[in-house]
Amino acid sequence: MKYPQHFKEIIEVLRQFPGVGTKTAERFAFQMLGWSSEKLARISDVIRSIPEKLQTCPQCGCIQEEKGCLFCQNPRRDKTILCVVSSIRDVFAIEETGEFAGLYHVLDGLLSPMEGKTSEILRIDVLEKRIHSNKIKEVVLALDSTLEGDATALFLKRELEKHSLNISRPAFGIPLGSSLDFVDSGTLTRAIQGRRQF
Amino acid sequence: MKYPQHFKEIIEVLRQFPGVGTKTAERFAFQMLGWSSEKLARISDVIRSIPEKLQTCPQCGCIQEEKGCLFCQNPRRDKTILCVVSSIRDVFAIEETGEFAGLYHVLDGLLSPMEGKTSEILRIDVLEKRIHSNKIKEVVLALDSTLEGDATALFLKRELEKHSLNISRPAFGIPLGSSLDFVDSGTLTRAIQGRRQF
Repeated sequence: MKYPQHFKEIIEVLRQFPGVGTKTAERFAFQMLGWSSEKLARISDVIRSIPEKLQTCPQCGCIQEEKGCLFCQNPRRDKTILCVVSSIRDVFAIEETGEFAGLYHVLDGLLSPMEGKTSEILRIDVLEKRIHSNKIKEVVLALDSTLEGDATALFLKRELEKHSLNISRPAFGIPLGSSLDFVDSGTLTRAIQGRRQF
Repeated sequence: MKYPQHFKEIIEVLRQFPGVGTKTAERFAFQMLGWSSEKLARISDVIRSIPEKLQTCPQCGCIQEEKGCLFCQNPRRDKTILCVVSSIRDVFAIEETGEFAGLYHVLDGLLSPMEGKTSEILRIDVLEKRIHSNKIKEVVLALDSTLEGDATALFLKRELEKHSLNISRPAFGIPLGSSLDFVDSGTLTRAIQGRRQF
């Protein structure tokens, strides 16, 4: 399209969001043309101040606000249990359950040699330092149930076995609300193996 | 989710795009956390300067760059033919065809009394002033083929009939590449009524 230069730039910016192609970016950009300059200035400020307002905690790798890490600096969290996740998103998904009150360790992704993601992304040095200094008793490997997630969990298990601590993984089984005949056989196998006293 | 305040603000901003719900906004926001501060500052600048860089032409209602309206200020456009469209998007869709070299008149939407959109949104005063001063010979009503589009076209036709000019509408008919049995009977009726020498 023969759009004005600045309009093209807006589209280019919006295309960088995941799943947004040219068509959607154009739709977003046309919407923005109708927004007031106050609204656009506010949005501009919110975006500009992301690096200043939302930093990464050097300990756990999660979002850190100006007043400090939401988790590491919270005296009510159990500092002897550590949940390893592959992204900041997973932290908030687990927080939503209300079932975990320990600390987190956010990896920079999952092991995937094909994509050049080797063990450096796991931040193992930081992890081991934390295990020592916080006298960690349990590490929960809350990683995706995918090839990469399983490989990463296995790798971490081997690395951490030398420390005397519990290593656990969330249970695999039937998702809530699903009927048995829709559950794949692999999941069902794990569900039966992991059956619990009822 | 118990997100940090600024993160919630980012989500709130992103949710304002059409078709973006909380889940998608979260996905976008997590993506932004990984962007460099230079990239975020650039995006922030692009957004902030929208009102200054992309103004609306008081004549045609289309996007106006700093150097003036892309259409009204272009000496190579035929100033005696005017295409009426309901949004700026439609202008660029028609430009893409390369079939129209006149000027545009962008309405602020289509007539829809249910949504409170009455004839004020049609900018008829500006339209009539342009018809007089530019000695317009033809007005093309390139409006949606919907209830609102048809009503608006009919209304404009009645309003403009008093001026001695041609009023046209783009042809209705079979969309290119479609087989006859997929075309609805209303469209087919219009296509046969509007058949042309082959």
